[in-house]
Amino acid sequence: MRDVLPRECEIRDYLLERILQSYRRWGFERLETPALERIEVLSGSKGGENEKLIFRVMKRGEKLTEARTPDEMVDSGLRYDLTVPLSRFVAENAAVLPLPFKALQVGPVWRAERPQKGRYRQFTQCDVDVIGLEAPYAEAELISATADCLRSIGLGAFTVKVNDRRLLWALCAKGGYAEGEVPQVLIALDKHDKVGLPGVVTELEVLGADRAATFGRLLEGATQAGRGAGEFDRAFALGLGAEVTDPLDELVARLDAPGEGWRVRFDPTLVRGMGYYTGMVFEVEHPAYGYALAGGGRYDEMIGRFLGRPLLACGFSIGFERLVLALSESREAVLPAVRRLAVLAGSLQESLQAQAWARSFRAQGCVVNVLPRRAKRVGKQAGDLRAAGFEVFSVEGDQVVTLDDPSRPGDARD
Amino acid sequence: MRDVLPRECEIRDYLLERILQSYRRWGFERLETPALERIEVLSGSKGGENEKLIFRVMKRGEKLTEARTPDEMVDSGLRYDLTVPLSRFVAENAAVLPLPFKALQVGPVWRAERPQKGRYRQFTQCDVDVIGLEAPYAEAELISATADCLRSIGLGAFTVKVNDRRLLWALCAKGGYAEGEVPQVLIALDKHDKVGLPGVVTELEVLGADRAATFGRLLEGATQAGRGAGEFDRAFALGLGAEVTDPLDELVARLDAPGEGWRVRFDPTLVRGMGYYTGMVFEVEHPAYGYALAGGGRYDEMIGRFLGRPLLACGFSIGFERLVLALSESREAVLPAVRRLAVLAGSLQESLQAQAWARSFRAQGCVVNVLPRRAKRVGKQAGDLRAAGFEVFSVEGDQVVTLDDPSRPGDARD
Repeated sequence: MRDVLPRECEIRDYLLERILQSYRRWGFERLETPALERIEVLSGSKGGENEKLIFRVMKRGEKLTEARTPDEMVDSGLRYDLTVPLSRFVAENAAVLPLPFKALQVGPVWRAERPQKGRYRQFTQCDVDVIGLEAPYAEAELISATADCLRSIGLGAFTVKVNDRRLLWALCAKGGYAEGEVPQVLIALDKHDKVGLPGVVTELEVLGADRAATFGRLLEGATQAGRGAGEFDRAFALGLGAEVTDPLDELVARLDAPGEGWRVRFDPTLVRGMGYYTGMVFEVEHPAYGYALAGGGRYDEMIGRFLGRPLLACGFSIGFERLVLALSESREAVLPAVRRLAVLAGSLQESLQAQAWARSFRAQGCVVNVLPRRAKRVGKQAGDLRAAGFEVFSVEGDQVVTLDDPSRPGDARD
Repeated sequence: MRDVLPRECEIRDYLLERILQSYRRWGFERLETPALERIEVLSGSKGGENEKLIFRVMKRGEKLTEARTPDEMVDSGLRYDLTVPLSRFVAENAAVLPLPFKALQVGPVWRAERPQKGRYRQFTQCDVDVIGLEAPYAEAELISATADCLRSIGLGAFTVKVNDRRLLWALCAKGGYAEGEVPQVLIALDKHDKVGLPGVVTELEVLGADRAATFGRLLEGATQAGRGAGEFDRAFALGLGAEVTDPLDELVARLDAPGEGWRVRFDPTLVRGMGYYTGMVFEVEHPAYGYALAGGGRYDEMIGRFLGRPLLACGFSIGFERLVLALSESREAVLPAVRRLAVLAGSLQESLQAQAWARSFRAQGCVVNVLPRRAKRVGKQAGDLRAAGFEVFSVEGDQVVTLDDPSRPGDARD
């Protein structure tokens, strides 16, 4: 984990504000669930690897004393995503929640991973979810709203890749894999972006070279078809029924304003890691970044685990930390320019004058720092403030005057 | 802990935005520390009772296996305030941090308390701190900026009570209490707001009836003097040196614009619970609420615990949850009004039309929800949306028309 310094906080707050405003205009409503969830909620939610990465919190008082093993000593854990807590929330409030419910969540999640460059054990996720709406309405809404949000941040052209888990399952079945082998095939396929088609085939050879080759050929056909046609019903020569390809077609037709800075593309190799997806999956790809900026899909079975009956659900998660990284590079272009003023005052009388001056500039939206003047080292004090981005002023007599920068030619003072 | 619903999230986000903007204009810079801190950082920081309320996080992997006792199994904990993490941060970055450093923090903290009405185990704190600036400059800045912030929220008239821990210590010494007894005396005095002077004296009788009576008389004199005079050097007839009373006087003189909706008052009974305060302490009192809305003080020794040498520090913490409660009561007056529109569409063609319509209203700042029209129960669908605060529209032919409310006289449709 790490401390986030003021410079980055500024970008994060700006980004958060834009995201909230953008999604709220689409009717999404923010909710916040607590950082800690009961350990039973977090475990066994098809969170895959993430469930092994839970920070576990110890019971307190008598309950701790009575526990025998480490597992018995734990009663809660830090959430590792925002989807599991949302599902728990929806199940608890199903009786009173108006459907469809369009949820917006932004908050930290925790995973006890080995820290890597740019990846930390605490990071912020930003999720939108539509509960209680069938395909492809929810999908179209999530993709359209997210595209609008990303465009409002000024991210430049991007592509939304879409696929359907059921197409992947059909592909596996055509390739001769049994249901129990599917997860392993999907893990191999998920690496397609990095290792390409030959890499996936090599990885699959542990399940048999023949089937690996067949699967490779099927995949190649599907990929090429997709690349050429750009439409879903013609894209996928697997003999699938219209129940999967029609909604994909309709999804594309229903998207709001693709073409204005973004486009949609069918990608039969798109997997998305989570085990809980049941239908369409999607991902935002940007030419400037080697990673997905957002990803999501339909998970119609997750809430049922808590509720006891199925409830339609579909979500899209923006990689907030990745967007922060992306925006940090174009910081000056993105953040609104704000004047930063510092004014140095000595006596009480001067301080009051500085305050009145500061007040008028703050009312105009400037940042103003009133500081006691360090009489014996004003030069250093002013230099440090300039280095921190301030224009430096000083109260002299009944005037507030610029404290000129001695390093700039023509300036004599100080 | 609890889930925060959309209605409250709106108030919280609005409040956060106002607080950040207001403090930033005063030159405070936001930083964020992680939720988890090493357990050694959290323990032994003079956090008093709070240290008993830490949610402790278990080690992982081999380190857990090697641990013998529950204490050995723990390596970190959830922060119980924002002051301890800030002190750790400042100590770690002391070499590069420009001083004075004006920090702004808003974030959740956790305490394993028995939940009470309105008090939860996870709650948000909002702290401003000035590091590296002597009294009363930092104090005046913190109080002025916080008063400005609270006024910008539209909170109505409030009072900032101030006192100095050193006056309290002198009061205790005058009352004949030894240094070791001071914490107990302060705990009794801290209840003054609730039990009054006689209650404090009664509570102190366990340390001897005579001294309790003496202390009561001293306190009465100080309180009355303070109430009458309104200035600090004359307020406190305890024979203290000017080193304590002069800065209190100067603090008041340096405050920015008291009188404009707020005032400052000396309160010799003000304690503030934390053990780490070393100088002035202060608190925001509002006639409409039976609890302090903010509190803080100088803690010049805390950072030294991490840094190895003392570093001047002073902070003010706004009770974010209390402000949320306060603002929820005047919700309509506080939140900017936003039109909420819902538009129902059937066919794909209608959907595209609804989307274009939605886009134009979103560009004007409206919230617009595009939904598939439920042909067989449009009446119920529209009624539910109206109950959720939406104006309801529908695409009919190539028009978007109001779906009139049948419950209102004169409306015939639907």
